Amino acid sequence: MDNNQYKLAIVGATGLVGRTALKVLEEKNLPISEYVFFASSHSSGKELVFQNKTYIVRELTESSFDEGFDFAIFSAGSDTAKKYAPIAAAHGCIVVDNSSAFRMEKNVPLVVPEVNPEEIKNNHGIIANPNCSTIQAVVPLKALDNKYHITRVVYSTYQAVSGAGRLGLEDLENGAKGIPPKKFAHPIYNNCLPHIDVFLENGYTKEEEKMINETRKILKRPGLKVTATCVRVPVTNSHSESINVEFEKPFELEEIRETLSNYPGIVLLDNVSKNEYPLATIASGHDEVYVGRIRRDESVENGLNLWVVADNIRKGAASNAIQIVEKLIEYDM
Amino acid sequence: MDNNQYKLAIVGATGLVGRTALKVLEEKNLPISEYVFFASSHSSGKELVFQNKTYIVRELTESSFDEGFDFAIFSAGSDTAKKYAPIAAAHGCIVVDNSSAFRMEKNVPLVVPEVNPEEIKNNHGIIANPNCSTIQAVVPLKALDNKYHITRVVYSTYQAVSGAGRLGLEDLENGAKGIPPKKFAHPIYNNCLPHIDVFLENGYTKEEEKMINETRKILKRPGLKVTATCVRVPVTNSHSESINVEFEKPFELEEIRETLSNYPGIVLLDNVSKNEYPLATIASGHDEVYVGRIRRDESVENGLNLWVVADNIRKGAASNAIQIVEKLIEYDM
Repeated sequence: MDNNQYKLAIVGATGLVGRTALKVLEEKNLPISEYVFFASSHSSGKELVFQNKTYIVRELTESSFDEGFDFAIFSAGSDTAKKYAPIAAAHGCIVVDNSSAFRMEKNVPLVVPEVNPEEIKNNHGIIANPNCSTIQAVVPLKALDNKYHITRVVYSTYQAVSGAGRLGLEDLENGAKGIPPKKFAHPIYNNCLPHIDVFLENGYTKEEEKMINETRKILKRPGLKVTATCVRVPVTNSHSESINVEFEKPFELEEIRETLSNYPGIVLLDNVSKNEYPLATIASGHDEVYVGRIRRDESVENGLNLWVVADNIRKGAASNAIQIVEKLIEYDM
Repeated sequence: MDNNQYKLAIVGATGLVGRTALKVLEEKNLPISEYVFFASSHSSGKELVFQNKTYIVRELTESSFDEGFDFAIFSAGSDTAKKYAPIAAAHGCIVVDNSSAFRMEKNVPLVVPEVNPEEIKNNHGIIANPNCSTIQAVVPLKALDNKYHITRVVYSTYQAVSGAGRLGLEDLENGAKGIPPKKFAHPIYNNCLPHIDVFLENGYTKEEEKMINETRKILKRPGLKVTATCVRVPVTNSHSESINVEFEKPFELEEIRETLSNYPGIVLLDNVSKNEYPLATIASGHDEVYVGRIRRDESVENGLNLWVVADNIRKGAASNAIQIVEKLIEYDM
């Protein structure tokens, strides 16, 4: 194998994130010479067309990684990750896992390449891709934390049904026809559901807890004061977020705009006189995080309100994982 | 005229709020002996069936109030209110106005009957009905302010298209067919629009400013620290709100639940172990404010997160106005 040519496995290749990963990989020109696509026995045997070539999806088994891979992107849920990611890692494959299985493990880097790429170097075979709603939030927050030191964050999210996979999309589509939901606890059609992932003892959902804990880990601010309300909205794709931030240091709004627009991976879309602000329909299909509705929150010292939108399947999952693989290649790991 | 029988005018009777007002009036048994329905020249002459009787909608003119009314409910926008409410008041008619025209006027009570009914007695012929998103927020906030003294509020709203009237509903329906919006600046279908009413110099929308200022006025807390992000979501009816509150005094969550459930006009729906929380589809068609997802916000001292949902056309407009009329009758004004 050529020194600059890598072998990549995609686990969960037939799911919503897996298929988007293939699309993103087709758009990029990575030095990967061999791709292998895995899925559960349920989906193995299916055909996938990738880079004008037809691939047969293989069944994921305990010996799948025996043949040797450089990298694997896992988008197959926590149970699959817990079982197979350590096997892959033991065979020298670096796993980028989209599930929540390893995110809070001390020895597992939790990476957004625009925010903490250097963490990639500390991996022990597994790198965790953060939760979709966290990824898009921490990109602008990191830009601002660097400069003004964040003291508190209040998140309220507006999350698309694609975050719940195909069944989520089906629930919205079927809901319009009066068909009861299968994935969600209540109809998502004509509703905003303040319920993503399971409820915990303290009344928060696991999604809310993920946003809180992952924000702290990625920003390397373990004691950062964060709270979250995570809400599913009847939108097909791209999450929107209302973010209220408090800073230690004073700021000028123009300075904030400049800081954000100069930060990698951010598109500043903030011209309300022309009705320009981030929207799900604008972000969908793109890898950037869109930031707008930037205004001072006069209810607190050094307070700011932001509206942040990104494609949750691309930047929130597939694209972020592939950006991590790009960094692994760049770092020659 | 019988001493206990009143004469009521509905101005803007053919609009979304006006028609809902008729429905709410049919459900109630108010001591009203005569109803007259007004609209602009555009809609006058239309027939309305009310209490099994057919009424012809009259054109609103400067002499409409010459015949003498006890009360008028205006749901016809600010321009109509500014022109005709003073005329009605000059003829001894007490106007309950749904528009924003008079809400912040010093001599105009801004009333939510569960919160500040006594203000009704200070009217000089015009009483303002607050903005829909404010009404549902201040009911639980007042219950909690009484007991714990609120120090700060952060609002993020999820507002239904019915708040923008029939054209808003049409934009959502047409959007599903790919037809561009007429009412909204961008497609509301598959989008969350962080843009309700016009933008102001400070980057806030007028809707956000209304929530901030009206909350202060209704709670009689002129200096209260409040910020808001108001968002239109692709939901037909009922607004949802993520409310983050800070209190001066410490609290127990069970005490909060008890306080809310004992407060008039609130339905506590907060049993996450059974997936019970407020939803637009649950609140629609009802006059109560639904409160749930009650949990401590650990990111600040005495912090609380709430999820609040109400029918924006009923409690947020028509029903609140009619409740004010009921109070006027009760107070014999």
